[in-house]
Amino acid sequence: MRMRELLLNADMGESFGAWTMGLDAHVMPYVDLANVACGFHASDPDVMRRTVRLAAEYDVSVGAHPAYPDLVGFGRRSMACSPEEIENFVLYQLGALAAICHAEGLALAYIKPHGALYNDMMRDHDRLAAVMRAIQAFDPALPLMVMATRDNGAEETLADNHGITLWREAFADRAYDGAGRLVARSEPGAVHRQRQAIVDQATRIARGEALIANDGSELYLNADTLCVHGDNAESIAAIAAIRAALAAEGRAPGGDGS
Amino acid sequence: MRMRELLLNADMGESFGAWTMGLDAHVMPYVDLANVACGFHASDPDVMRRTVRLAAEYDVSVGAHPAYPDLVGFGRRSMACSPEEIENFVLYQLGALAAICHAEGLALAYIKPHGALYNDMMRDHDRLAAVMRAIQAFDPALPLMVMATRDNGAEETLADNHGITLWREAFADRAYDGAGRLVARSEPGAVHRQRQAIVDQATRIARGEALIANDGSELYLNADTLCVHGDNAESIAAIAAIRAALAAEGRAPGGDGS
Amino acid sequence: MRMRELLLNADMGESFGAWTMGLDAHVMPYVDLANVACGFHASDPDVMRRTVRLAAEYDVSVGAHPAYPDLVGFGRRSMACSPEEIENFVLYQLGALAAICHAEGLALAYIKPHGALYNDMMRDHDRLAAVMRAIQAFDPALPLMVMATRDNGAEETLADNHGITLWREAFADRAYDGAGRLVARSEPGAVHRQRQAIVDQATRIARGEALIANDGSELYLNADTLCVHGDNAESIAAIAAIRAALAAEGRAPGGDGS
Amino acid sequence: MRMRELLLNADMGESFGAWTMGLDAHVMPYVDLANVACGFHASDPDVMRRTVRLAAEYDVSVGAHPAYPDLVGFGRRSMACSPEEIENFVLYQLGALAAICHAEGLALAYIKPHGALYNDMMRDHDRLAAVMRAIQAFDPALPLMVMATRDNGAEETLADNHGITLWREAFADRAYDGAGRLVARSEPGAVHRQRQAIVDQATRIARGEALIANDGSELYLNADTLCVHGDNAESIAAIAAIRAALAAEGRAPGGDGS
Repeated sequence: MRMRELLLNADMGESFGAWTMGLDAHVMPYVDLANVACGFHASDPDVMRRTVRLAAEYDVSVGAHPAYPDLVGFGRRSMACSPEEIENFVLYQLGALAAICHAEGLALAYIKPHGALYNDMMRDHDRLAAVMRAIQAFDPALPLMVMATRDNGAEETLADNHGITLWREAFADRAYDGAGRLVARSEPGAVHRQRQAIVDQATRIARGEALIANDGSELYLNADTLCVHGDNAESIAAIAAIRAALAAEGRAPGGDGS
Repeated sequence: MRMRELLLNADMGESFGAWTMGLDAHVMPYVDLANVACGFHASDPDVMRRTVRLAAEYDVSVGAHPAYPDLVGFGRRSMACSPEEIENFVLYQLGALAAICHAEGLALAYIKPHGALYNDMMRDHDRLAAVMRAIQAFDPALPLMVMATRDNGAEETLADNHGITLWREAFADRAYDGAGRLVARSEPGAVHRQRQAIVDQATRIARGEALIANDGSELYLNADTLCVHGDNAESIAAIAAIRAALAAEGRAPGGDGS
Repeated sequence: MRMRELLLNADMGESFGAWTMGLDAHVMPYVDLANVACGFHASDPDVMRRTVRLAAEYDVSVGAHPAYPDLVGFGRRSMACSPEEIENFVLYQLGALAAICHAEGLALAYIKPHGALYNDMMRDHDRLAAVMRAIQAFDPALPLMVMATRDNGAEETLADNHGITLWREAFADRAYDGAGRLVARSEPGAVHRQRQAIVDQATRIARGEALIANDGSELYLNADTLCVHGDNAESIAAIAAIRAALAAEGRAPGGDGS
Repeated sequence: MRMRELLLNADMGESFGAWTMGLDAHVMPYVDLANVACGFHASDPDVMRRTVRLAAEYDVSVGAHPAYPDLVGFGRRSMACSPEEIENFVLYQLGALAAICHAEGLALAYIKPHGALYNDMMRDHDRLAAVMRAIQAFDPALPLMVMATRDNGAEETLADNHGITLWREAFADRAYDGAGRLVARSEPGAVHRQRQAIVDQATRIARGEALIANDGSELYLNADTLCVHGDNAESIAAIAAIRAALAAEGRAPGGDGS
C-alpha cells in the first residue's frame, strides 16, 4: 500500500494589474502548493508579491508557473518558440519569482509550466528538455511537475539525464483515456461535475488504486500531487472536501495515517 | 591623494528580439561593469543570456539595469509609479537577471537603475528608498550606483539606513553645473565632443581632482565609476583612450599604480 | 432654462484577454454613450468587437477611450510622453476602434481620453492640443469629451482653433471644489455614497442649476454628459435611478420634455 | 505575352521605439508598395506615422502588414490563435494604420500579412478565411497579397467567396520547389546570392516566363508583385537593378513598354 502524501496544488497569482482572477485567499488554506504565475501569461510584480506573502501566511510552498510570453492569450496558445527561447524565458521567470519569494522569506520550491507550455512539453520532449535545462541551470534540486500518465518512463529518463526530480500530477475532476491522458473537454464525460465523484477519484489516486480509463482499462497514476482549481464557491467547496477526504486517509501533510 | 580605482561601466544588452542596439562585443573588452537591461525597457531573456555570457568571457562584472515598464519608450519616460510598484518591479528584474547570471556561472554584482527611473530616484527619495528596499530584500551586499553630485549626503544617509552601499558614478563627456548635476543636453557646451577633453575629465575624476562646473566653481565628484557609451566606432575609441589613460595612472583594475 | 438632453456615458470594454472587468451587459441598457477601451490600457481586439456589438444591440453610441500605453497600470499612471507621441498613439487607437465599429455597422461617435491621459490633458494644454490634432487628422467632426469645470474657456478656444467640438462631462457622485474640479478622493465628502444625493446632483446638472462647491460657492457646470460607473449591482441601480430621474425631467434621449 | 506591370513591394516601418530596423529611406525610392508594420510584431504609432509620411513623399502605396501579437518574436513564431482572434486583430491593425494613412493624406491600399501569419494562412485556409473576413468587414476593395504558387486556385475561390481581390507575390531571390513553394532556407541553393541571378528571375517573372523549380519542372507564377528586401547596401543595389531591369522591359509603373 502506498504511503505517500498526495499534495494539493492550485494555480495562484493569476490577477494582473487592475484585473482580478481567482479566489486565492479562499483557496490558500486548503492547498500545499501554490503555482504562482510569473508575469508572462498573468501576474505582475505586485500581484506576485501579494501572492507569495499570502502563501507564506498559510505555510504553502510556492512553485513557479512559467509560461509562453502571451498575456492576452493567457499562455493558452501554443507558440513556435525554439528550445533556447524556452530555456531562457523559463530561467528568467524562475529568477523573478525566486527573488520575490526570497523577499518574503520563502525559497522557491518547485516548477510547474503553465497552459500551452505544459501541454507542449508533454508531447515534445525537445521542449521538455529545454525546461529541464533551465531548472538545471537555476537549481537542479527544484522538482518539475509533469502530468502523470500511464507511463512516464520517457520523462523520467530525461529527468535523470538532467539530474532533475519529477513530481507527477493527477486530476480529480477529469476523465482519463487509456494512455493516461486527459479526455478532451469537448468529449462527453470529460469533466466530473459531481463532488462525490471528484472526491472518490482523489481518494483512489491517493491510495494508489487504479482509475478506470474511458476505454475500460485500469489506470495507475502513481501521483505525487493533485491539481485543484479555485474559481468559484463550488470549486472551493470541492477542494475542502478533497482535503478532508485525504486527511481522513492520512494522505494530507500533517495527517497521522502514514 | 586618491588611490581608488575608477571602474568603467557601460549599458549593455539593450537589443530586443529582432532589433540590435549597441556594439556590446566591441565595448566589453574595455569596461569593468556591464549594466544589463532586464526586459522592461530593453533586452529579453535571450539577449540577457548572450550578454551575460559575453561579460563572463571578458571577466566583466554584471549589474542589473532595471527600468520602468516602458519598452516602446525605452524606459526614458517618467511614470507615476508608486514606491511599492517600484520596489516590486526592481525586485522582479533583479531576480530575473540574477538567475541568468547564475546559469552562466556569475553572480550579480551591483544595480544601476536605468533612464527615467535613475533620474527620478535622484530627485525623489521616496523612489530611491523603494529601490533600496528592493536591494535590501534581494541582497543588501549589492552596491547601488547613483549619480555623483557635489553632495550625496542625503543619498548616503538613506543608503546607511537600508544597509546598502553606494557607488558614485561620474561622466567624462558631460559638463556639470554648480550643484554637481549634468548640464542639460539642450544647453551649449553640455556634451564634450573632443576626445582629449573627455580623457582629461576622466583623468581628473580618477585622480580626485576638481572639475570646473559651468558656474566656475570647483567640483569634486569623488566617483567610484565612470559611465561610458559604446554606440559607434568613435565612442568605442574614446572608451579605449579613457581606459589607456586610467591604466597609465594606475587607476584601472589590474593597473600597478596603486 | 436649459433644454438640452444630458447623455449618460460609461467606460466599457475594460476586460482584457482572460480577465473580466465591468458589468457591460447590465450597464449598456441604461446609457447613451459607451467609452470603449482601445487596447492600450485595457481591452483587446476580441473584447472591443464584443463590446461594440453589444453597444449596437442597444443603439448606444461608441466613443474611443484612448490611453497611455500602460496595460499593467490600467492607464492610470501619468507618463512623460511627448505631444507627438500622444498625437500618434491617440490616432492609432481611434483608427483601431473605428475599424471595429465599421465592421459592426457603427460609426465611431466621439472621443474621451482615459485615466491619466484625461487628467493630464486637462492641466497641460500641450497634451490637450496633441489629442485635438489626432482628432483633427482623423475626423474633426468627432466631439472630444472634456471635464466640465467652472470655466472651460481655454479648452473651448483651443477646440475652436482645431475645428473640434467639445462635450462637457460632469459627475453626479463627486463633490466639486470652487474651481469646478473634482475634490480629491482622499478628502472627506469627496464621493457621494447616498443614491438620492447622486440622483439630486444629476438632476440639478441636467436642469442647468447650480451645484454648491466645497467652498460654498455656486457652480454651474453646463454639462452635455454625465459619467456613470457600472462596477457592481449598487452602481447599476444608481445608473437606473439617474436614468429614470432624467427621463422624468425630459432630459434623457427620447424624453418628451424639450 | 503578359502585359501587366510587376510591382515591387518591401517591408517597411519595422523599427520600434528606440530600435531601428531597415533602410526605409533608401528603399522607398525604388518600390511601389510599402508593407507597413502595424504595432503587433514591429512598429509603433510614431514609426508608422514617419513611414507613411515617407511613402507619401515617394508616391508609394501603403499596405497593412498585420501580424500575430508577438513583438519579441517579431511575428515569426506561429501561434495557435483562433480564426476569430485572427479576424479581430487583423481588423484592429488595419484600422490603426488606415487612420495614420488618412492623417497623411493617403488611403490604405492593400494588405499583406506578415511572417508566421502569412505562412500559416497559406497552409491553413481557416486562417486565410479569417484574414479575408477582416478585409471584407473593413473594405473589400483592398487587395490581399498572397504567395504565388503553382496553383492558387483554392485561395482564388476563397477570395471570390469573400468578394476579395488577390495579389500574387513572387520572390526573385529564392528557389522554388515543384509545388511552387519556396525552398527552405536550410536547403542548398535556396537563396540566390548573385545579383544577376536575382535580376534574371525577376525579369522572367515579369515577362510571365517559366522558372525552373528545384525538381526540374517549369513553374509559371503569374505574379502581380515581387517582394524585395532592403536590409543593407547590397540588397538595395539589387532592388535598384531589378527596378532598372523591369523598367527596361516596360513592366514597372510609369514604364512605356506595355
